[in-house]
Amino acid sequence: MGISFVKGHGTENDFVLLPDLDASLDLTAARVRVLCDRRAGLGADGVLRVVRAKAIEDRPSDVDDAMWFMDYRNADGSVAEMCGNGVRVFARYLVESGLVADHEFPVGSRAGARAVVVMPDGDVAVDMGPARVTGESAATIGSRTLVGVAVDVGNPHLVCAVDRLDELDLTTRPGYDPAAFPHGVNVEFVVVEAADRIRMRVHERGVGETRSCGTGTVAAVTGVLHSRGERTGAATVEVPGGRVRVEVGEDTSVLTGPAAFVARGELDRAWWDGISE
Amino acid sequence: MGISFVKGHGTENDFVLLPDLDASLDLTAARVRVLCDRRAGLGADGVLRVVRAKAIEDRPSDVDDAMWFMDYRNADGSVAEMCGNGVRVFARYLVESGLVADHEFPVGSRAGARAVVVMPDGDVAVDMGPARVTGESAATIGSRTLVGVAVDVGNPHLVCAVDRLDELDLTTRPGYDPAAFPHGVNVEFVVVEAADRIRMRVHERGVGETRSCGTGTVAAVTGVLHSRGERTGAATVEVPGGRVRVEVGEDTSVLTGPAAFVARGELDRAWWDGISE
Repeated sequence: MGISFVKGHGTENDFVLLPDLDASLDLTAARVRVLCDRRAGLGADGVLRVVRAKAIEDRPSDVDDAMWFMDYRNADGSVAEMCGNGVRVFARYLVESGLVADHEFPVGSRAGARAVVVMPDGDVAVDMGPARVTGESAATIGSRTLVGVAVDVGNPHLVCAVDRLDELDLTTRPGYDPAAFPHGVNVEFVVVEAADRIRMRVHERGVGETRSCGTGTVAAVTGVLHSRGERTGAATVEVPGGRVRVEVGEDTSVLTGPAAFVARGELDRAWWDGISE
Repeated sequence: MGISFVKGHGTENDFVLLPDLDASLDLTAARVRVLCDRRAGLGADGVLRVVRAKAIEDRPSDVDDAMWFMDYRNADGSVAEMCGNGVRVFARYLVESGLVADHEFPVGSRAGARAVVVMPDGDVAVDMGPARVTGESAATIGSRTLVGVAVDVGNPHLVCAVDRLDELDLTTRPGYDPAAFPHGVNVEFVVVEAADRIRMRVHERGVGETRSCGTGTVAAVTGVLHSRGERTGAATVEVPGGRVRVEVGEDTSVLTGPAAFVARGELDRAWWDGISE
């Protein structure tokens, strides 16, 4: 018997989901790396292990034993806290596999419990926590300097309004002020199409340009609202990988978007067992 | 019920294999493209549909009804003739799934029937047909000019000996003589480590640098033998994606290498049905 998997994506941020209900899988960093390798493995931006929260020793205090825990790993094998696109795929899997009976429930993660709602059409709404404007800063692309709004969504963002997205060269990292962002920053470039509709491209810290970034869409809407003197509001955000909706409230923000399943099956056992550190 | 698939690779040239024994699958170019998309789909360099040869109307005359036919599609949805790495994965699948009872058999392809031998360890030897030296030509990388041996293996190659592989910048296409290669050329850069062992990097025509190129390894060994004044011989070839063995004979050449299975399962039926042109 092989190792069960599901492959899916949220706005083309893609994941291999590994149901490991009894926490028996020896998920080493090397196995994560090879599994996420897009030619030698199945290929993904990350791995989402589905495991009972009680099996996770160092879980946050608001994650209780009865929850399902999203053990998220980056493609490089490192442990990660949360992923706004991954948690949608994770939550929809829990409902469709019958692991949860309700459509509204909390998902455990290293960033704490996150409330999710799985809609009848398969879209998933995720409570992303508060988004907080922390000031102004500037990004540079080539010889251009763009002033932007700095937003904290648990991780740092810089939201820069532009006239056109297609002309931006994001093959290299935008320049930023290291005094303002000592740990680096995710930079969102946004075109405001209407009061409730924006388009965005994003350069993720340590990754490069991506098809989508969940916290980035929340930051983008928060930044655009701030530029209009507003603290709360909602907008759809078009990213290269699809479309999501963001609602920014006084105390928290909600990201709603698609969760797509592409394939399911089993990883080859001999292949899996042959992966060593 | 979903659509059965197997994901595998030959020296990290990776494929989605679709068993379609009764030729019932509506495999449109759009479905191939989305299936091979590395974030929105499962991701692969190409698709190998497994179908009875009798279902293929325009098959070559040496492919008879009883053979299994490798209906190979490139990731862009176009039809392709043959793939030296893909046919290994295809042949091993036929044996392991019980579709053929023997370990030596011909595989049908648009380039004709190819004799294969599936070894007990899962490696597969493939008759690649004759490799023919057609002359000398030169490739350029930046300001360097490298004289090489032109080799035809059904497709055109230029084999250039170098001292080191790690310094080559293959992010852009090497320059070549368009009079010698009016339809473009695959360029192999080789370091001869020993009489029977070479290392190689390859820039594939229309693709860029790849982890491996089956016909390229045959061309490389043929070119190195020619430089020594020899017409036949054998060598192992180390490519970025692994290692293969090439035997060059008077009338034909044989490529032996690994065929790895990573996963198997079913494509999501709703996802598949939702892909339109």
